Parts: sequence; structure tokens; C-alpha cells
Amino acid sequence: MTDSFKLGIAGLGTVGCGVIEILQNHKDMLAARAGRRIEIVAVNARDKAKDRGVDLSAYDWCDRTESLADHEEIDCVVELIGGEGLAKTLVESALETGKHVVTANKALLAHHGFELAQKAEDNEAGLAYEASIAGGIPIVKTLREGLSANKIQSVSGILNGTCNYILSTMESTGRDFDDVLVEAQDKGYAETPPDLDIEGIDAAHKLCLLAALGFGMKPDFEAMSITGIRDVTAADIQKAKEKEQVIRLLCKAVAGKAEVKPEYVPVHSPLGTITGPQNAVLISADPVGDIFLSGAGAGRGPTASAVVADIVDLARGEIRPVFGMHYSLLK
Amino acid sequence: MTDSFKLGIAGLGTVGCGVIEILQNHKDMLAARAGRRIEIVAVNARDKAKDRGVDLSAYDWCDRTESLADHEEIDCVVELIGGEGLAKTLVESALETGKHVVTANKALLAHHGFELAQKAEDNEAGLAYEASIAGGIPIVKTLREGLSANKIQSVSGILNGTCNYILSTMESTGRDFDDVLVEAQDKGYAETPPDLDIEGIDAAHKLCLLAALGFGMKPDFEAMSITGIRDVTAADIQKAKEKEQVIRLLCKAVAGKAEVKPEYVPVHSPLGTITGPQNAVLISADPVGDIFLSGAGAGRGPTASAVVADIVDLARGEIRPVFGMHYSLLK
Repeated sequence: MTDSFKLGIAGLGTVGCGVIEILQNHKDMLAARAGRRIEIVAVNARDKAKDRGVDLSAYDWCDRTESLADHEEIDCVVELIGGEGLAKTLVESALETGKHVVTANKALLAHHGFELAQKAEDNEAGLAYEASIAGGIPIVKTLREGLSANKIQSVSGILNGTCNYILSTMESTGRDFDDVLVEAQDKGYAETPPDLDIEGIDAAHKLCLLAALGFGMKPDFEAMSITGIRDVTAADIQKAKEKEQVIRLLCKAVAGKAEVKPEYVPVHSPLGTITGPQNAVLISADPVGDIFLSGAGAGRGPTASAVVADIVDLARGEIRPVFGMHYSLLK
Repeated sequence: MTDSFKLGIAGLGTVGCGVIEILQNHKDMLAARAGRRIEIVAVNARDKAKDRGVDLSAYDWCDRTESLADHEEIDCVVELIGGEGLAKTLVESALETGKHVVTANKALLAHHGFELAQKAEDNEAGLAYEASIAGGIPIVKTLREGLSANKIQSVSGILNGTCNYILSTMESTGRDFDDVLVEAQDKGYAETPPDLDIEGIDAAHKLCLLAALGFGMKPDFEAMSITGIRDVTAADIQKAKEKEQVIRLLCKAVAGKAEVKPEYVPVHSPLGTITGPQNAVLISADPVGDIFLSGAGAGRGPTASAVVADIVDLARGEIRPVFGMHYSLLK
């Protein structure tokens, strides 16, 4: 493995450019950690002319996204397009040609994870998705590798930074949901339309993947119970306060059941202390007991950090089954 | 890799027996995660006759510890003897014959980690030590792999459960150090003599390894500044309380400087909320920001969990450089 590890990157938004920045600025550090150099060969996005603040001149510009999958030089496709259309086609064809894939696409994996795991494992390719859950927190690695000796009993967490920002702002200001949502949209913490976040869908995509990993099950998004935060009122939050509690959009999975809904939690409990766009995960497992992890849930730096960590693992030749064990063994 | 992965285990105390228990009770789960079966071939301890509550009848009993290193069938030696005498000889000779080693021995690695890394890497063997730091918290994996895209700025933590138990008991009861120490010894939370823990040495061994991993440096125990908790008084703790603070034995490393000493921390800060024998680590890094991890710092289950996770990684053929990059690249 003295050859460099060659990447094609699709999607040059804030995370894509963050990934390129890390790869450009920390070449030697990454080579030391990966055991070989990591090199960007080709990139793809909708608009070639757009100034993104990073120098792309050294890379092949592919007009067609799919051509990254056929590109002969590329070892690994980094999919940062999002959604289930073009991204799905790219990931499928890359895996079919035996290329590794790194993605931050939770929707794609929650809906098509099992078929993609089959494609990846049948083609001896890696499909890595640390960046798709809880931003910079290495939760996929923790569940799949760090706790491999454990029977996971439950996985709970705060997995959507937008909802957590809205709830903790309602808490600190006493203002009502709609009012805080508009402000969050103005500040760029919430998208327009905000439904994917505030309806709990985004959090459910992430929990779906954590449940698959933790319990060795096929991802089953359809079976999840999902309630968002749209109906949480300033009065609910005030009522919580009086009992030294806060409201959080909690994700909770035990074997066979995964649920997302707003819940009361004690203000000084680990999950109660998580404010703003932070994420956190609490794992109960035997024999390790409780493990708690928290950190930034999204954003350019944390997400790019997770993408590049996956790239380094694959560059080292470390390829794990997508959900921790061969797809044929998933329940 | 369809052959089973064969282990020799030296040291059958509480952690050793915990490891055997997991390997016996979760054979199929571990085989699914490792991609092949994990098998204990031989064991060694001082007293063959002792009843340890686990069935050892299927394994070769080696009277001489060193014979595990020469054992032809063994792929990996699990060193749970502790200390720097016999353990050092065993680890060295196992690595010299190209066997992988899994250890929970922080003292050995803090004092001899660089030479052992040379031996391991020159012989293409793995030397894994997740269990030596912060029990069940996968902090080695997080620093070395999860944050491989980051420049680590600081690593802070509570790494000695005995000291944290004593300090938080002083806090909740108002009692003085000597009094609480005797009780901790009676309850088995502190050893007799207690010096290694209460003088901060054990915490410093662990911080030494985290600093090496985080900053890509040779472990340098001699350069550390270490103050224990022996001089913390009930009055100090009372004074802290009045300022909404608590006292914790804090471990803190930045590039080139690592220090262990009792410090005031805000009671509702992440490290301030860690009570009893819990451990926690706070990592500040660029671009991920702050990542916080907490969990059980010691004990049979958490430590055995970390030992077996290392075994699974090695059984998968996933061998990392000991301190995250080849020893010749360490500063």
C-alpha cells in the first residue's frame, strides 16, 4: 500500500469544501496516520463556475456525477450530494465497481442501507458513514468497534442540532416555537422548509442507523415511531422548568423498538445539559455499563472531520461490514 | 481468515476472568463481529489450584508465563499480569515472535511504550491497550481513529476512579481525606498501599499515553508534572462548594506539556458532574471542536469490554501503529 489513496468527491457544498480543506492543509499528518498519501483526483458539483473559496484547479472536473463511479484511477468516492436520487445512483454504481464509498447521507442509508450493505460487502468495498450521525462524535466507530464485546441494551440521544437549538432557545428566552423557528432560519440553524428537522425525520434517520449497528438488525425506518417538536409550547417548557426539567427531542432505541419524540429530562442529567446545536448519545450495554458521548452535531468542521476519519480508515485498508457484521447475519 | 483467532491469556484475576467469561458467553456474537471465531488456547497464572468461578478445563495451563510467547498455536497474547517485571518480558518476547499483544498495562506502556512500539511495528504485530486508559471508554480508538483528521489542541480528563471516588465522597459527606481513604480501602475502591492512585501516578501513566497518541509524540513519563490528592482537605472542598465548584484530580495535556493535579472545576461543567469511580475525557481539536466522553473508569466488566474489543480488532486483521503513526514519525 505505498500507492496513494485516490478520491473522487461529489458535492462541493460546505462539507465538501471542508473535506478538501483538511486534505489540502494536513497532507503530511494524514499520510502519517493513514500509512500512505491521500490524494484528490476528481471532483463534481452542479456549478463549475462558482467560487467556493478552495482551489480546485489540480483536480479533474467531472461534469457528470456518475463518471466518478467509472473513473479508473479512483479508489474511493466521497458522496456529499445528499438525498436519494443522484446520490443513490452514484453510491450504487461506485460500490458495483468495487470502489469504497464515504457518505454523510443518513436518508439514503436509513431507506436503502441493507441493499447498499449487500452491494458493498459482495464487492469487498467499504461503505462508511460516520459523518451521517452526530457530526464529529465518533458514534459509529464506538458502537461498531469500541463496544464490540457488548450486548447493547439501549441507545438514547439528541441527534438533531436544529431541534435542540430551538428547544434550548425557547427555554432560555421563554419565547414560542414559531418565533424561535423563524430566528433559527434567519441564522442558518434551520432550513426552509424546516420539516425534515422539526418533524423528527432527520433524527429518526440517524437513530435508525444506530439501532441497526447496535442491535445487529437490518435498518427499518418504516417501523419507527416519530414525533417532532412542532407542538411543543412555551407553556410546556415553563412547566418542565418548574420541575427542574427541560424538553429534548429524544431518540431512543432498544432491540426491536426505535422512537423519536420530545421528552422531559432532568436539567442536570447528561442529556439535559446538552444545549444549542450540540448532539449527545448515551449507550447502555453489558458489560461496559453506561457510556456517554457529546460534541458538535453538525457544521462544516465536525462533519468534515468524520468524513476524513472514514477516508483514513479505508486508506489503511480497514474495511468493516456496514452494520458491524456481514449482511447475511443481520436480523 | 477462516481459521479461528487463537489467544493465550496471562493473568487470571478479576479482569482476566471477565475476559474469559465474555469470550465463553458471546462466542457467536463475537464471531459475527470479528469475521471468524475467537478461541482461547492457553492460560497462565500463579496459582493453578485457585477456584476463579470460570471453567478453564478446555485450555492448556502454562506453568511458565513466557511459554505463551513461544506457544506455536497462539496468534495473540493477552497480558493481564500488570507491573513491569514478568509482564514486560512476556510482552517483549511475544512481539519478537510476531504475536499480537493486548494489554491493560498502563505502567508498562508509559515507561517502555516507545521501545515496545518499535518491537511491535518491526515485527508487524499489533500492540493494543484500550483497556489501560479509562476502562470501558473507547478513548484510544477515538483519539487514534475517530479524530484522525484533527489537530488535537488539548486532552483533559478524570482518569483515576479511586481519586474521584474519594474526592466526591469528601464532597458529599464533608469528611476528611484520611477518613474517606480508609473507607475506600475497606470497600475495595482503593488499594493498600494506595500510593499509586492517590499520588496521581496511575492517572499520569494514562495521560502519558493519551498525550503520545494525541500529539504524535514518544511517551515521556519523566517530563510529566504530577501532584496527587493527599493534601486536599475538607476545608478546600468546602471553599470550592461556596463558589459552586468541586475539586477533581485533573489530567491535562497540550502539545509538549502534561500535568496531573487537583483543580477547581464548576460543579455543572462536564468534568464537574463526574462523581464516584467514573472517568471522563474532554478533547479539544481542530476542526471537530470539543468532544466529551464519560463512562466507568475501571472494574471487571468495563475493562474486559475494552480488552475484548481490542481482540476483535486484531482478529479482523486491523493493526494500527501503537501511537497512531509509525514509531519513526513520532516527535
